[in-house]
Amino acid sequence: MKTLTVGDYLLHRLQQAGIRHLFGVPGDYNLQFLDSVIDHPEIAWVGCANELNAAYAADGYGRCNGAAALLTTFGVGELSAINGIAGSYAEYVPVIHIVGAPASQAQQQGHCVHHSLGDGDFHHFLRMAQEVSVASAVLTAENAVAEIDRVITESLHQHRPGYLLLAVDVAAAQVELADLPSSVTPDDSAAAAFAAAAERLLAPAQRVALLADFLAARWQLQKPLATLRQLRAIPAATLLMGKGVLDEQQSGYVGTYAAEGSSEAVRRAIEDTDVTLCVGVRFTDTLTAGFTQHLPAERVIDLQPFHATVGGERFAPLSMAQALAALLPIYQRHCAHWALADHVSCEENEQPDDAVISQRAFWQAMQRFLQPGDIILADQGTAAFGAAALRLPQGAQLLVQPLWGSIGYTLPATFGAQTAQPERRVILIIGDGSAQLTIQELGSMQRDGQQPIIFLLNNDGYTVERAIHGAEQRYNDIAPWNWTALPHAMSVQCQAQSWRVSETVQLTAVMEQLMLNRRLTLVEVVMEKQDLPPLLRKVTAALHQRNSGQV
Amino acid sequence: MKTLTVGDYLLHRLQQAGIRHLFGVPGDYNLQFLDSVIDHPEIAWVGCANELNAAYAADGYGRCNGAAALLTTFGVGELSAINGIAGSYAEYVPVIHIVGAPASQAQQQGHCVHHSLGDGDFHHFLRMAQEVSVASAVLTAENAVAEIDRVITESLHQHRPGYLLLAVDVAAAQVELADLPSSVTPDDSAAAAFAAAAERLLAPAQRVALLADFLAARWQLQKPLATLRQLRAIPAATLLMGKGVLDEQQSGYVGTYAAEGSSEAVRRAIEDTDVTLCVGVRFTDTLTAGFTQHLPAERVIDLQPFHATVGGERFAPLSMAQALAALLPIYQRHCAHWALADHVSCEENEQPDDAVISQRAFWQAMQRFLQPGDIILADQGTAAFGAAALRLPQGAQLLVQPLWGSIGYTLPATFGAQTAQPERRVILIIGDGSAQLTIQELGSMQRDGQQPIIFLLNNDGYTVERAIHGAEQRYNDIAPWNWTALPHAMSVQCQAQSWRVSETVQLTAVMEQLMLNRRLTLVEVVMEKQDLPPLLRKVTAALHQRNSGQV
Repeated sequence: MKTLTVGDYLLHRLQQAGIRHLFGVPGDYNLQFLDSVIDHPEIAWVGCANELNAAYAADGYGRCNGAAALLTTFGVGELSAINGIAGSYAEYVPVIHIVGAPASQAQQQGHCVHHSLGDGDFHHFLRMAQEVSVASAVLTAENAVAEIDRVITESLHQHRPGYLLLAVDVAAAQVELADLPSSVTPDDSAAAAFAAAAERLLAPAQRVALLADFLAARWQLQKPLATLRQLRAIPAATLLMGKGVLDEQQSGYVGTYAAEGSSEAVRRAIEDTDVTLCVGVRFTDTLTAGFTQHLPAERVIDLQPFHATVGGERFAPLSMAQALAALLPIYQRHCAHWALADHVSCEENEQPDDAVISQRAFWQAMQRFLQPGDIILADQGTAAFGAAALRLPQGAQLLVQPLWGSIGYTLPATFGAQTAQPERRVILIIGDGSAQLTIQELGSMQRDGQQPIIFLLNNDGYTVERAIHGAEQRYNDIAPWNWTALPHAMSVQCQAQSWRVSETVQLTAVMEQLMLNRRLTLVEVVMEKQDLPPLLRKVTAALHQRNSGQV
Repeated sequence: MKTLTVGDYLLHRLQQAGIRHLFGVPGDYNLQFLDSVIDHPEIAWVGCANELNAAYAADGYGRCNGAAALLTTFGVGELSAINGIAGSYAEYVPVIHIVGAPASQAQQQGHCVHHSLGDGDFHHFLRMAQEVSVASAVLTAENAVAEIDRVITESLHQHRPGYLLLAVDVAAAQVELADLPSSVTPDDSAAAAFAAAAERLLAPAQRVALLADFLAARWQLQKPLATLRQLRAIPAATLLMGKGVLDEQQSGYVGTYAAEGSSEAVRRAIEDTDVTLCVGVRFTDTLTAGFTQHLPAERVIDLQPFHATVGGERFAPLSMAQALAALLPIYQRHCAHWALADHVSCEENEQPDDAVISQRAFWQAMQRFLQPGDIILADQGTAAFGAAALRLPQGAQLLVQPLWGSIGYTLPATFGAQTAQPERRVILIIGDGSAQLTIQELGSMQRDGQQPIIFLLNNDGYTVERAIHGAEQRYNDIAPWNWTALPHAMSVQCQAQSWRVSETVQLTAVMEQLMLNRRLTLVEVVMEKQDLPPLLRKVTAALHQRNSGQV
């Protein structure tokens, strides 16, 4: 048996989980552990400007890499990050949050040390973290091996955050390296009953559609979904949150489903069926124009991470992957009778460009700009709802956060995504109001020589809020910034290029130039402050009604 | 009886608590309430770039104004702010945190709405808030009047945050305006017994000293403390956290007490006594060089917010104000026998300036720059520990956050302090690593035409961390910024002035010019990355020992 420190043991397990970068901010309670990180041959330290940004970066990394890790310091650091962790919890991203804590003795004796509330209770923040974690542990030299393994395993299994409190002395304590525990073996004992019920529903069906969402992406079911669709091109759609989990160039793809917010063709393709196969779907208010989906349980086969329902009957335990595997032979036996998708190209009806950059002109230009393999991040607001209408090129991935919906998330998430995938082109589309929340990571991107392309939609404040309520109210204004000056201000060795465009012809000229060179780029796109993508117009009307008690 | 909405009722009570500004960030769950704010004749909306900054700004405002209020949106907004609220809790600042929440019906039915975790439980964040609040309420139309009054009253009484969850429909519901409830009447029934015990200790004493700290400032005991000291100039000191609560120009003031981190003269003046009067004192690791104070209970009269101890005997209930009032006649009767403070001018031994700006040269120049009535904010790190050696002019106030110690706090707190006190000169001293966390409010300051003076100590990373551990480790580096370009980048109508200085003669020349004009100013002060104020050198050595398990 090999002896090593708890800190090194933890890094060893993170590496085995496929994590190659640790995001965070140093603090005096985590500096000793950071020495281990710096010395580690495989895991790189990625310092961020603040902890919320670090949590967002880790989340973006986790969405591209499968899992992520975050290091903060006790109290001040972990609480600054907790909104980012809550987003990872809501939207199923396994982020291991390691918090450097005061020495065990200081905790036991209840000392009034810095970063505590001064009341001798060192578990306030642990209890807060437990609200947004699937597993947590207060590590000691004695329990470290078992608890690190339990928290990481559970986090990866449930695809949600885990929390490890690591006191400075515990990080340095010696433990013996145990064998890697076997990962959780899924219990799929309901598979046979599920398959029988699914076949009873599917055998007589003539109109079958597929609706896939973000949970299918988190559990990496892209390939089995593509395999099904190759057997027969039935109508297939995603919700905005799951965009990219289906190959949108594959035959049968009809567009983004948003219930009554969808185009009529998409809505009918998914709702007017005998059976709709839902894979990893969650219906959220903003993605369904306020829960306007019409998918009665008796016509739905619904696959969730650890159970499934068929015509309203629930089958558990059953993993989503196993349920999908069980569907394959049934699909094969019956799909020849199922109607093919109509040729809908609803989101591709390109219209003449407006002279000034309207939402329509912007998204048409963006559609032309996209390339296979791009990673696109669109912030909650006009950006995400505009992106819903894109048809993604093959291998492209869209990162949005519509359930948690924390504005500003995507800018640090872009930093994280580019860290995970340095070779891929990363495109960020974000509003001015959102970018102000988290702008600092523009400096981190430049420090690390990253080259994402940022489209900063300057529509003079919180346009998505204006659309919901208070169109002309002062609270939806923001402090106006010189956006194109920021890359230079946030780097002493600035290699970035910046543009400010307000006419469509300028935007397309810049995009053409961007095809020719790779540098960090900020394009400030000046837009009208009340202009909205069509989907957002429907969604915000629904939200306004719900907030006004009209629904 | 007058009928009004819950939102208007809440604003009415905030105004009665002396709050004239509401800090925050809009979100669709708080927009209706914001309409009431905009319409309110006395309370102004102060939008911030993000919620953590808004919480820090509210805290800074609360320290200058007595109380503050913060508005965020459900989940994403409130959790982003929670580190700032925790700081207000740890350091006793009454901030009323109002959170706009989804409609009551959506909550009751457990809808999967945006900004929730998607699990139908709408009390996750309430439970988290309760860890850092003295009172909280989920408002309904029925309980709003009573609960708003209870939470605000309790928050003001305990000088700590209160939390109000305000669903969109509840904000708009009608209530009747009740009379203002009488504030909590302090129970001071232990006063007589306390006075008798205190007199037994003080009557025979010959060497009596006064040590006042931040809690005396929070409970606004500046005047009674000055009255005592006018009777006899016994040795008087504050801890760093309470600097400003004693008039440092008044005779008897000996300096900042930091236990073994103090100068020998200060330490002896406070510790080598027959009785030390402690008023609102909390001993924190960073302010005592790791709990090295020598003040045995038998020689201490200790006044805390709701109790006191005399020679180790506890008296409660007893408010700090009442205990101090009870001490006055005892002081009067006996103080003629007490030794006067030696003439110590320990922190004023001005030495020749170094040519390049050392820590010593900077703080000497700063001492000369200060004027009566200044509000000085010094961020945790070299700034706060350097500020400990300042002798404050009359009426000057120092804002530091040494217990919670969240770096970056002071930049938004400066925005809040200047909002509370638009006429006073506000000076911020902050390191480069700290300023990166919260830089956005540079835009808000300019939007609102504020004119604080910012000294940005550029010592190339986290110098305070280097001093504790990892002096040359990469994790203590930050992304290098062009600091002087930032005011322009963060305002389209920039009126700010910026300088970059590295020689002492440049710094003093800039300071002379600042005496002549009032504009928002950023002075980047280039300093050596390993240079430390003397106090910080002692403190970080102690912290390193504690974190390494050597204590």
